Amino acid sequence: MINKLLIVGCGLIGSSILKKVCKKKIAKRIFVFEKSKENQRALKKFKLKFELIKRMDKKISECDLIVICAPLSEYEKIFLACNKYSKKNILITDVGSSKKDIITKINRIKRKDIKWISSHPIAGSEVSGPLNGYENLFLNKWSVIIKQKNSQIKEMKKILKFWKLLGSKTVTMDAVQHDKIFALTSHLPHLIAYNLILTATNFKVLNNKDNILRFSAGGLRDFSRIAASNEIMWRDIFFNNKSNMLKVIDLFIKNLKVFKQDIKLNRKNLETKLKNLKKVRQKIVLLKQDTSKPDFGRI
Amino acid sequence: MINKLLIVGCGLIGSSILKKVCKKKIAKRIFVFEKSKENQRALKKFKLKFELIKRMDKKISECDLIVICAPLSEYEKIFLACNKYSKKNILITDVGSSKKDIITKINRIKRKDIKWISSHPIAGSEVSGPLNGYENLFLNKWSVIIKQKNSQIKEMKKILKFWKLLGSKTVTMDAVQHDKIFALTSHLPHLIAYNLILTATNFKVLNNKDNILRFSAGGLRDFSRIAASNEIMWRDIFFNNKSNMLKVIDLFIKNLKVFKQDIKLNRKNLETKLKNLKKVRQKIVLLKQDTSKPDFGRI
Repeated sequence: MINKLLIVGCGLIGSSILKKVCKKKIAKRIFVFEKSKENQRALKKFKLKFELIKRMDKKISECDLIVICAPLSEYEKIFLACNKYSKKNILITDVGSSKKDIITKINRIKRKDIKWISSHPIAGSEVSGPLNGYENLFLNKWSVIIKQKNSQIKEMKKILKFWKLLGSKTVTMDAVQHDKIFALTSHLPHLIAYNLILTATNFKVLNNKDNILRFSAGGLRDFSRIAASNEIMWRDIFFNNKSNMLKVIDLFIKNLKVFKQDIKLNRKNLETKLKNLKKVRQKIVLLKQDTSKPDFGRI
Repeated sequence: MINKLLIVGCGLIGSSILKKVCKKKIAKRIFVFEKSKENQRALKKFKLKFELIKRMDKKISECDLIVICAPLSEYEKIFLACNKYSKKNILITDVGSSKKDIITKINRIKRKDIKWISSHPIAGSEVSGPLNGYENLFLNKWSVIIKQKNSQIKEMKKILKFWKLLGSKTVTMDAVQHDKIFALTSHLPHLIAYNLILTATNFKVLNNKDNILRFSAGGLRDFSRIAASNEIMWRDIFFNNKSNMLKVIDLFIKNLKVFKQDIKLNRKNLETKLKNLKKVRQKIVLLKQDTSKPDFGRI
């Protein structure tokens, strides 16, 4: 059991951790730092036993484990506060979606005795904020734990155990591998969804633009759901995984240009490609990343 | 009430029409033409009153209304059979997703007395075939009825009524407008989904490609659902709406390149764009094209 836990940032992910930690009594005392006034008001209505702190100051010196659930652009400030106030050998983890650049940046400024084992629960939604959090958000989902050169087994084990207690399946990998995988499985899909909504709404040829959204049930609406994600979080992810993003965007454009040529000229090639791509779905279902129940086309 | 109805092609859409027509007793007699042996076997297990025909021959001369639910590449053959066998002034509709090119092509070859009012129910799924059809597939969904220069009000009204009986909301537009709107709301989203799955599975830098699909819950899996649609149907749609597809692909690439520049250099611009794009979701929900219930991130 954790003695004193601090959750920094209490949006969708932070509040889901808070709820599960309270439910499963994973920590003796829980502190929550949240800077948004709106979120603070929401948190005050939670019927859970925790202490809301409004400043990252000496209060954090009591804590044994700090979980950062704030956007990547807040990390520097948070670690500087930890440098100043946290006790010796404090253990910190986070839930950021991009790893390599932020780890390099923070390792340069953080106090050497601070143990940081970075993690990434693959759980999210198009809704954000503490009112949307729920205790089983992590249940049976992957949580990736990042192994750095200097990661010590003892601390790794503690963080792995923490995510397992929250209901996650866990896997370890290094930051470089993490950022490549999630550039493709998550970051590019989000950017593409945003770009599709942008393209649909700035196509100039139509007289009545309302018709685009009115008839969006045939595919577009499903992208709008993904493109409704939190803008600060996603700005930070795209920025922090910049080098991979630039590569996968180029590859995406290259592939799309070939598709364009097939549509122009090569009906047989087009059919073969679509047929092969269809098979990927079955693999994803076999890997339990989705159910086979039809969902597209629902109302 | 329709005297004798023929459904040509009985996959997801055809079988859903069949089920609803039987349930609501919309036609006195129903014929179904289906050329796939597998689908024929599935249809024989349906406990519904209809007659399965295996050839488009003199049997069709009895019919009053023909509904074509086959891929666009089958239309020519079907209309040639109608030319040969159907009675004078027969009324035909179809459910194709692309209009202008196919209408031009068929108008050149079809018998002048054949009345063809083209339609497009905005209903579909990532699954196909008669076993996946269900009677309420069209309930509260849009069906677009295409108005051509020579469309007569009497026939238009019959087809509008047909879709209303199946539970649809109806709207009329011309083929050019239809193809522009659905290039953006449906055809481009499908192509982009296929292209994203292609890009994720042919990214060369990773050692272990399984990891891409294993961690696909963060966005990619939702695209794989859309990219699991029927390949013949989509090959035909992309091909038949070629001129619009080429335009919207170019616009998509242009917008994606600007996004790439923003990720490289302009954090503020990126944030503003994501924030504005997020708002589109609310409009889509207001237009009842989706529910506000979170769905992305589910298991």
